[in-house]
Amino acid sequence: MILANKDVLGLEEMPAEEILGVLDIAAQFRAVFDRPVRSVPIMRGRTVVNFFHEPSTRTRISFELAEKRLSADIVNFSAATSSFKKGETLRDTAENLAAMKIDMLIVRHGSPGSARYLAKVLECSVINAGDGGHEHPTQGLLDIMTMRQRLGDLRGRKVTIIGDIAHSRVARSNIWGLTKLGAEVTLCGPPTMVPGALAKLGEKVRVEHDLRTAVADADVLNVLRIQLERGAGKGFPSNREYHRMYGITEDVVHGLKPEAFVMHPGPMNRDVEIASEVADGPRQVILDQVANGVAVRMALIYLLSGGDPRALGGSTA
Amino acid sequence: MILANKDVLGLEEMPAEEILGVLDIAAQFRAVFDRPVRSVPIMRGRTVVNFFHEPSTRTRISFELAEKRLSADIVNFSAATSSFKKGETLRDTAENLAAMKIDMLIVRHGSPGSARYLAKVLECSVINAGDGGHEHPTQGLLDIMTMRQRLGDLRGRKVTIIGDIAHSRVARSNIWGLTKLGAEVTLCGPPTMVPGALAKLGEKVRVEHDLRTAVADADVLNVLRIQLERGAGKGFPSNREYHRMYGITEDVVHGLKPEAFVMHPGPMNRDVEIASEVADGPRQVILDQVANGVAVRMALIYLLSGGDPRALGGSTA
Amino acid sequence: MILANKDVLGLEEMPAEEILGVLDIAAQFRAVFDRPVRSVPIMRGRTVVNFFHEPSTRTRISFELAEKRLSADIVNFSAATSSFKKGETLRDTAENLAAMKIDMLIVRHGSPGSARYLAKVLECSVINAGDGGHEHPTQGLLDIMTMRQRLGDLRGRKVTIIGDIAHSRVARSNIWGLTKLGAEVTLCGPPTMVPGALAKLGEKVRVEHDLRTAVADADVLNVLRIQLERGAGKGFPSNREYHRMYGITEDVVHGLKPEAFVMHPGPMNRDVEIASEVADGPRQVILDQVANGVAVRMALIYLLSGGDPRALGGSTA
Repeated sequence: MILANKDVLGLEEMPAEEILGVLDIAAQFRAVFDRPVRSVPIMRGRTVVNFFHEPSTRTRISFELAEKRLSADIVNFSAATSSFKKGETLRDTAENLAAMKIDMLIVRHGSPGSARYLAKVLECSVINAGDGGHEHPTQGLLDIMTMRQRLGDLRGRKVTIIGDIAHSRVARSNIWGLTKLGAEVTLCGPPTMVPGALAKLGEKVRVEHDLRTAVADADVLNVLRIQLERGAGKGFPSNREYHRMYGITEDVVHGLKPEAFVMHPGPMNRDVEIASEVADGPRQVILDQVANGVAVRMALIYLLSGGDPRALGGSTA
Repeated sequence: MILANKDVLGLEEMPAEEILGVLDIAAQFRAVFDRPVRSVPIMRGRTVVNFFHEPSTRTRISFELAEKRLSADIVNFSAATSSFKKGETLRDTAENLAAMKIDMLIVRHGSPGSARYLAKVLECSVINAGDGGHEHPTQGLLDIMTMRQRLGDLRGRKVTIIGDIAHSRVARSNIWGLTKLGAEVTLCGPPTMVPGALAKLGEKVRVEHDLRTAVADADVLNVLRIQLERGAGKGFPSNREYHRMYGITEDVVHGLKPEAFVMHPGPMNRDVEIASEVADGPRQVILDQVANGVAVRMALIYLLSGGDPRALGGSTA
Repeated sequence: MILANKDVLGLEEMPAEEILGVLDIAAQFRAVFDRPVRSVPIMRGRTVVNFFHEPSTRTRISFELAEKRLSADIVNFSAATSSFKKGETLRDTAENLAAMKIDMLIVRHGSPGSARYLAKVLECSVINAGDGGHEHPTQGLLDIMTMRQRLGDLRGRKVTIIGDIAHSRVARSNIWGLTKLGAEVTLCGPPTMVPGALAKLGEKVRVEHDLRTAVADADVLNVLRIQLERGAGKGFPSNREYHRMYGITEDVVHGLKPEAFVMHPGPMNRDVEIASEVADGPRQVILDQVANGVAVRMALIYLLSGGDPRALGGSTA
């Protein structure tokens, strides 16, 4: 039993052993991605509802692909066509879904804590696909998986996260997961986006407003999207100014340690937080992140559905 | 052969024996909801198109779940992305769907009679998921199923429907179905929403504008949503005023017969037509209605697809 | 091996033998449409992404039905909910999809060349479902299939295409495909929509602005939709004026050769480019086109997935 809870709500509460257990299973799924037929029948006859209250492409599609590869029945449900427009409460919608006997709920929602709330109300498993500025645990797991593929054990490794840390659920999930696995995390960005108080998030967390200093000894740069659409980024005069001071350019990359690499959760604002040459260059691992995302989501759904980790070798090999 | 027609368009034309036959099958599906794998392969390789011209969450998801549990292939099609924007007529869209050889069409549309029109044009089965203010037969069936689960035979039972009866397809389907099964129906609401002429809908139908009188001897209260989004509700000065005069409050519930219960088709406007304490209290059966909705839709699709009622015991037990 | 390339981007580059090979397979799929279960398992466990950047009903549903009948897993992805809103480039979205290991991409997009671009970037097969004013090859193939069903060999046959040829991807795919198969194509419409220079598209292509002259010896009339929503049609004072001069009316049809027939790709603007009596009359084959569309798309997906044409007789008979 790798996961103790019925839900995956955040990495803050997930013990290091669970994180490592999930990543092991994910690696097994990842290993069979090139097979022509990639399906595993564990979810056959069971229903997953993808309940996305904020627009999303990659996360929703990544979850859908993971669900389909596990043979689940899928119902999609987006804010645009939902009863929320009719003024129904989140709780009433959730209880309705529960009464229809769904087996799993994937939820993205603008309110921090919404996933936890739904998990409490519902008997079925809930996976948080991003709840406001709180957490985005599957993104955190796929980021950590990508780092471990390159670096192995993360103890003592240095990860610098650059961007609007204060409003980023991706940053928060990274911070919780990485520090549990023993990595040291540096948070970098303008003071409006990276208040010094963020260093209190953990012993191994430090804040550094100067980009060159922040990345000098980093093993990994995790470059966040400037979330213009979530009302963040207002702490900066312009995209051009942000790029000049915090954009990851070829020049920044030249100053890194030789084996250091660059990550981005997507979608990228090219030439804002990351220069196009870096986004397309040899030091980035962005598409590995994407592939790992499907694998991590398969692993979580598999485990929450009662999949036996020992059986997996046989059923996917 | 439980259903004589290829379509389910309304309860006005469905004989009492058909209603009871459908509800028997639905009860069998309902009984197996707690099995981990709930699929029945009757629709394997056949295609159902969900054609929703009005936004819907619960009805669409309920149909989708029913279809998936019967192993149908599903194509969703909503007004937002349809050719209707391009000025195509309903008939042309329908004939196109027919030419593509779909096996069943579920339709929600703002125009009364649209489902019947499509049923006439198409060879395949059509189920009406709500056509303007005309009928919403699957809602009527699930409401009646929920009442029969508690009350058994409905002959002589008293059902009070409260709300904007004049504009409600839910009310109409309830009235036709309930009176056929021998229940007595009281319609209650302000005169603007419940004109006295509605009593002409049947011998067992009466109109009563005073809420306390209307519910005094009721076995069931079926509380309708105030459909602000359909331009109804204009017959009343404010939501607060409506709640004061027709809202089902704890106080109203205390005045009911001891075994009487409260239904609502959802989505609820809490503290408008129903007080939150009632919506969450021991006298409501709202989530039973939701679960029964999936079962009723499974039963209809099963029967219209040629499912053998006698075979069901074996295949779902 | 009927198709030499991994992608289907346009008929301009598809050799005549490939076109005929696809249509043979499509005819086999079409022949089994009336079977109750129409599924072929060739795509089981493989994922098709339908990536529609422009609203579409019939093309998207036709593709979805084709995919489902080949047992594919399907992910839908429309502009309305995509990251394009977040400023992501087409290339980044495409590379993301590729990293998720999808097996086939169906793309509709407003930019000519977008399908080719995606095909170049992606390892998986890409089918063009319409790229701006460039090509709509599956529509071209289904139109040609419909003509061949009635006329057999198209060599020397006369096809008149009427409408806004200059902006029509349907017209372009028809022109390329038809001329390769030896048909003679007449393009008809007002000079603003049918510039004389279009005659340079091929030896067997001519331009004729007078409708009666253009259709006098035609075997087929392919009547295009006036694409008001794509900014075309501005070359004409009004819909009424267009109808008067280029609308296909009963009167026009009476002047045709006895066996000539009328096609329309849909959705129709009744009583603009085609009179209602003609649209519903005995000379049109519009719903055959629709049915053939599913068959053509099945054939392409089947062949691109490595389906063996010789095996088909057995597996679908």
